[in-house]
Amino acid sequence: MSRLGIGFIGCGGIHNAHAPHLVDSEDAFIACAMDVSEDAAKAHCEKYGTKHWTTDRAELLAREDVDAVVVCTPTGFHKEAVLDAAAAGKHIFCEKPIALDLAAIDRALAAVDEAGVKLQIGFNRRFDPNFARVRQAIVNGEIGAPALLHIISRDPAPPPISYVKVSGGMFMDMTIHDFDMARFLIDSDVEEIYTQAGVTVDPAIGEAGDVDTALVVLKYANGVIGTIDNCRRAPYGYDQRVEVLGSKGAISTANNYPNAATLSDGVSVRRDLPLNFFMDRYTESFANEVAAFVDAVLNDRPTPVSGYDGRIPVVMGLAALKSHREGRPVKMSEIG
Amino acid sequence: MSRLGIGFIGCGGIHNAHAPHLVDSEDAFIACAMDVSEDAAKAHCEKYGTKHWTTDRAELLAREDVDAVVVCTPTGFHKEAVLDAAAAGKHIFCEKPIALDLAAIDRALAAVDEAGVKLQIGFNRRFDPNFARVRQAIVNGEIGAPALLHIISRDPAPPPISYVKVSGGMFMDMTIHDFDMARFLIDSDVEEIYTQAGVTVDPAIGEAGDVDTALVVLKYANGVIGTIDNCRRAPYGYDQRVEVLGSKGAISTANNYPNAATLSDGVSVRRDLPLNFFMDRYTESFANEVAAFVDAVLNDRPTPVSGYDGRIPVVMGLAALKSHREGRPVKMSEIG
Amino acid sequence: MSRLGIGFIGCGGIHNAHAPHLVDSEDAFIACAMDVSEDAAKAHCEKYGTKHWTTDRAELLAREDVDAVVVCTPTGFHKEAVLDAAAAGKHIFCEKPIALDLAAIDRALAAVDEAGVKLQIGFNRRFDPNFARVRQAIVNGEIGAPALLHIISRDPAPPPISYVKVSGGMFMDMTIHDFDMARFLIDSDVEEIYTQAGVTVDPAIGEAGDVDTALVVLKYANGVIGTIDNCRRAPYGYDQRVEVLGSKGAISTANNYPNAATLSDGVSVRRDLPLNFFMDRYTESFANEVAAFVDAVLNDRPTPVSGYDGRIPVVMGLAALKSHREGRPVKMSEIG
Amino acid sequence: MSRLGIGFIGCGGIHNAHAPHLVDSEDAFIACAMDVSEDAAKAHCEKYGTKHWTTDRAELLAREDVDAVVVCTPTGFHKEAVLDAAAAGKHIFCEKPIALDLAAIDRALAAVDEAGVKLQIGFNRRFDPNFARVRQAIVNGEIGAPALLHIISRDPAPPPISYVKVSGGMFMDMTIHDFDMARFLIDSDVEEIYTQAGVTVDPAIGEAGDVDTALVVLKYANGVIGTIDNCRRAPYGYDQRVEVLGSKGAISTANNYPNAATLSDGVSVRRDLPLNFFMDRYTESFANEVAAFVDAVLNDRPTPVSGYDGRIPVVMGLAALKSHREGRPVKMSEIG
Repeated sequence: MSRLGIGFIGCGGIHNAHAPHLVDSEDAFIACAMDVSEDAAKAHCEKYGTKHWTTDRAELLAREDVDAVVVCTPTGFHKEAVLDAAAAGKHIFCEKPIALDLAAIDRALAAVDEAGVKLQIGFNRRFDPNFARVRQAIVNGEIGAPALLHIISRDPAPPPISYVKVSGGMFMDMTIHDFDMARFLIDSDVEEIYTQAGVTVDPAIGEAGDVDTALVVLKYANGVIGTIDNCRRAPYGYDQRVEVLGSKGAISTANNYPNAATLSDGVSVRRDLPLNFFMDRYTESFANEVAAFVDAVLNDRPTPVSGYDGRIPVVMGLAALKSHREGRPVKMSEIG
Repeated sequence: MSRLGIGFIGCGGIHNAHAPHLVDSEDAFIACAMDVSEDAAKAHCEKYGTKHWTTDRAELLAREDVDAVVVCTPTGFHKEAVLDAAAAGKHIFCEKPIALDLAAIDRALAAVDEAGVKLQIGFNRRFDPNFARVRQAIVNGEIGAPALLHIISRDPAPPPISYVKVSGGMFMDMTIHDFDMARFLIDSDVEEIYTQAGVTVDPAIGEAGDVDTALVVLKYANGVIGTIDNCRRAPYGYDQRVEVLGSKGAISTANNYPNAATLSDGVSVRRDLPLNFFMDRYTESFANEVAAFVDAVLNDRPTPVSGYDGRIPVVMGLAALKSHREGRPVKMSEIG
Repeated sequence: MSRLGIGFIGCGGIHNAHAPHLVDSEDAFIACAMDVSEDAAKAHCEKYGTKHWTTDRAELLAREDVDAVVVCTPTGFHKEAVLDAAAAGKHIFCEKPIALDLAAIDRALAAVDEAGVKLQIGFNRRFDPNFARVRQAIVNGEIGAPALLHIISRDPAPPPISYVKVSGGMFMDMTIHDFDMARFLIDSDVEEIYTQAGVTVDPAIGEAGDVDTALVVLKYANGVIGTIDNCRRAPYGYDQRVEVLGSKGAISTANNYPNAATLSDGVSVRRDLPLNFFMDRYTESFANEVAAFVDAVLNDRPTPVSGYDGRIPVVMGLAALKSHREGRPVKMSEIG
Repeated sequence: MSRLGIGFIGCGGIHNAHAPHLVDSEDAFIACAMDVSEDAAKAHCEKYGTKHWTTDRAELLAREDVDAVVVCTPTGFHKEAVLDAAAAGKHIFCEKPIALDLAAIDRALAAVDEAGVKLQIGFNRRFDPNFARVRQAIVNGEIGAPALLHIISRDPAPPPISYVKVSGGMFMDMTIHDFDMARFLIDSDVEEIYTQAGVTVDPAIGEAGDVDTALVVLKYANGVIGTIDNCRRAPYGYDQRVEVLGSKGAISTANNYPNAATLSDGVSVRRDLPLNFFMDRYTESFANEVAAFVDAVLNDRPTPVSGYDGRIPVVMGLAALKSHREGRPVKMSEIG
C-alpha cells in the first residue's frame, strides 16, 4: 500500500484527537468513518472531508480501502471492535483500555495474535515531548539509576457524575494513563501497589462508589519507589508532571502554558494558567502516536505500545483498587 | 465564494510557513502554485496535494479559482507581483517588505487601493501568543501606561554572506520585524530613531557593507522610549522576547522551548535549548496570520496588517540606517 | 531581665547554626559556653567573643547570668541536659529529638512542666520563609482545604557510616524534620503511616541496618493524604521542597540558590546548583527560631515549637520504621 | 593592628547598611561614631553597642583607635570628610559619589594619594552574588566575547521631591550605580553616551528639573554596545537585573525574592513580589564590600573599588545629562 487507509470506529469526542492528524497526511488518509449515530458519522465527514461513512461496523470492515481501524468507541465496545477488526485482518489502533476485565482483554489479544495484525493501544502520553524527554534522560544515563519517581496527574475538574458511574472508577479511567507512564519510564516491573485514596472534591463521587483523590505507591522489582498523585480537580488547570531522582541527577517536567508571558504589578508576579484541556495539552502527543502507528504498519515494525502494554495497566488498576479497599499493599501477582 | 481559492506566487522556503495552514482548511484551499522554477512548483504540488501549477504568473492570475494570492518571492519581486495581482483583482497576502524603497511601496499601495483588493503584509509575529499577550496586557490596562519597551530579537546564526549581500541590510531584513512589533505594541508613532551598531559576529558581514549587531532606540510621540536589540548570532538559539514597563506594572516574555523538562545533576540545573528555527518558533503565528487574512477576505473585514503597516517599518529601517551612518538621532520626518 | 543570658550546652557543629544569631543581639547575649571538650568551649569563646566557658554542665547551670540554655549535645545527652536545666530553673532550647525513645521524652517533658520553664524544640524549618509562606497560604485560605501534600527532603550526600550507626536510623535522624513539617503545615493529626523504603545509595548503609531512600505516606484524620520523599543523596545539592494541593489552588516551593543568574550557551540554559549546605540553606530559619525563643522567654509567651511538638515526630518515626519492617500501614495509636 | 578600628562619619540611613557588618566582626570593630546630630550619634551607639561617640569630626579623626573611617554623610560633605580623613592618615571607605563635580573629586583623590591612605568607593553592587556571577562568566569566558549588555535598574517608587531637588539629578543619584556596573562588567572604556529620557512617573519631578525615566546607550571602545534602563517607579518592586550577550552564550539575572513559593489557583500562577527595599535586596553585597575594604586595609591590598572607579561614573553621569540636554551622543572626552 502507498498510503494507509484508515477507518474510524466511533466518531465521538476522543476521535477528534486523532482525526486531524490523519487527514491527508503524506502516509495515511481516512477512507471511511463509522458511528452508530448517522449524525456523528456525517459530522465527521463534514469536518474532515472524509468521503465515506456508515453506521455498520461490518460494512466498514469489509471495505478494501480500509487497511487499519482506529477504535474510539466507548470502552465497553472496544473488545468487540478489536475482535471483529482482527477477524477482518485490519490493523488496529485502540483507545485505552481494551476492556475493564482481564479475561476480555486476553480474548482480544489472542484474536489479534491469531490474525497477525498489528495492535497499538492509545497511551498517547508516551509521545509527549516532556515525558519523552524524561524517558530519554533515563535511557541516556543522564540521571544515572532511577531511585524515586513521582507522577502528578490532575484533571482540571471532575467529569459529570453520569460519566463517573460508567467510567470503571478513577483507577481505571484516569490512573490508567499514569500506570502506563510508570511502566514507560522505568525499566522494571511493578511488583506491589499501595493506595491511599478518598473523596475530597465532590461527595457525589463517593456516593457513586468512586474516589476522586488518590496517592498510589509503586514498588518496582529493581527497588525503584514510585508515586502517582491523582485528583479529579486542579483549580489552576490540567496538571501533568513527572519527576525522577536518579543516582547521578534528577529530571522533572513543568506544565505547558498558552504563552510565555509574565506579568508583574503591585500584587504579584504571575503568568496565565496552564493549558486546561487535554486535547490542547496533548496535541503533539496525539499527532505523534498515530504517526508512529502508521509507520509501524507501513514499515512492518512492532507498534510502540503493544497489546501487552495495554493489559498491564489494567492489572495495576485492579491492584490499586484492591489495596484501597483492603487498606494494605497488594502484590501484582495477586491479580493475575 | 465558499472557500477561498489561494494562488501561491513563489514556492521557496518561506512559502512552507504558510502552505500547511491553507491545505484543506475549512475556509480555504490552494488552487494553484506558481514558481519560475518548474521543479519548485511541482515539489509544492507533491508536498501539499495541490492540483495545478505553473511557471507563469500571468497564467496563475488569470485563473478563476484563484481568489487571492500569497506572495513569497524574493523581496525584489514583491512589488511587481502586487501590482499584477491588484490589476487582476486578486486579494493579496504579501511577505514583508513590499519593497526596499518607498517610491516602489507607494506605487504598489496605490495600485492596491485603486483595485479595491485587500492587502495583508506578512508581519506574522503580531499573531504569536506571547506577543499577543503583551499587546493584550497593554490594551486591557493591566500594566497601565507604557513607559519603556525592549525588544530582543536575535537569530541563532547569521545567513550566508551571499544572502547578506542581497538582503537590503540587517535593518531592512531582520529589524523590520521588530519595527513592526514596536508599532504593534505601542499606540503611538515613533518620531525619532537612534542606532548604535557594528560587526561583532563575522567580519565578512562588515566587508559586505552590513552590520550584525545593533541597538536601536525609539522615541515615541507619547514619550515612550523603546529599544531593539538585534544580533545575527545567539549561540543558544532563536531569541525572541519583549518587555514593557508601564505605570502599573510590567510584562515580559520568555523564549519557547521544545519541552518543559529540567535536568539537575552535579554540574547544573538546566533545560534544553529554546526552539532554534523560526518556523518551529512561529508555527502558531504563521497559522494565525493566514487564518486572519482568509477571514478578512471572506468576511470583508480590514486586514489586520495593512499596506500602511507594511510601509512604516521600511521608513524606520531607513531612519535606523541613516542614524547608524551619521552617528546621530534621525527623525522619521527626515525620511518621508 | 533586660537581655536574655544564654548558656550553650554543647559547642559542636550544630551550635554554630545558633550562636551567630545570639551574639550581641538586642535581646540576648551568650553568657557562658559549656562543652565536655575544653578545646571546643574555648574555640567557641574565640569565635563568638563569649567571656566565660566551662566543661562542667552543673557549673554553667549554676550561673546567675544564664537565664536559658541552648542544648546542642549529641542526641544521647539531650534528655539529661533538659532534666538538669529544668531542675536549675533555666529555660530550654533543645535540638531535636529530645530522645529516641518515648519514655525518656516523657520524663523530660514532665520535668519541664514541673519546673515551669519554657521549652522549645529545634525544628527550625518552620521558620524558613518558603515553608512559612506555604503555611500562610493554608492559614489564609489561599488554596482552600488541603487535599494532597508532598514533602521532598533530600540530603546532598550521605553522612559517614560511623554517623549512620549512631543516628537512630534515617526516619529518626532525617525524616523527623519532615514529620514536623507535615504537622506544621496541616491542621490535623496523622493517623496512619505507610513506608516503602530501601537502599539505593550505599550498600554499607544497608549493612549498618538502615535505609537511605524512602517514601512515607501519611494519612491525616481530616482526609488529607501526604507523602515524604527522602533520599540520602541528591547529586545536585540539598533538595528541600513542599507542595500542597487544596480545593481552591496549590502552592509549591522551589529550592534556594546562591544566585539568580541563568547562563545560556550552545549546550543548555542553566543555572548554578542550589545551596548545598544546610546551614547556608537554612540560615534565615535558624536566625528566626532563636529569635522566637528569646521573644517567648522575654515576653512570657508560649514557645512556637513545644515539647509535645518534639514528641509526636518521634512517634511518627517509630511508626514509619514499624511500617517498613512489617510491610503494612501502621496506625499512630499502635505506637503510643 | 589586629582588628581594624572603624570610625563612622555620618550615622544616617545608609550607615545602617554598613554598621551591622562591622559590629564585632573577626577583623574589625566600631571604635567611634560621629554625627553632627548628637541624637543620631547616640542612637548609633545604642543600636550597635559602640562605646564612643562625638559630634565633632576632628575629634573622631584624632582618635588613635580609629584606623579607618566610613563616610556616610550627605553627598555634599563627602569631599571635605575625605580631605580631613586623608590628612589625619585614616583609610577611607566613602559612599558614592565623592562629589558631583570633577574638580572636587580630583582634589579629594589627590589628597588621598598624597596621604598614602586607602580609599574605597561604595559601589556595593559589584559584590552582589548575581552581578558577581555575571562578571565571573565573562572573566571565565563562559559566554565568549561580550557584544551587547543591558542593565535594568528601577526603583520601587520615587523619592520625595525635596530629595529629588538636592539629589544631583537622576543620572548622578541613581544611574551612577549602573555606570559603575557597566564598567565592572565589561573590560573596556565607555567612549560615548546617548541618552533618551523624560518624565513618565511624576510631573513634579520634571518641574524640579529632573527626569524619572531614562534609556542610556553606552558605546565601548571594544565595540560592545550597552544600555541602562532606569525608572524611578517599578510598581512590582525593586528591579535590578543585567543581561549580557557574548559570542559563545549569554547570561542574565533575575530579581531576588523573599521566598521561592509559587501559588496557583483559578486565576493565575504567581509568586510574591521581589524584595522591595534596597537594604534587603543588597544585604549580602553590603556585607561583602566592607569585608573587602577591611581586608584591603589589614592586608595592604588595593581596594576593589578605587578612587578612579569613583570618578569615572561621575564623568558618565555628566555625559548622559549633556546628551539628554543636547539630543545627541556625547563623547566621554567632551567632559574631562
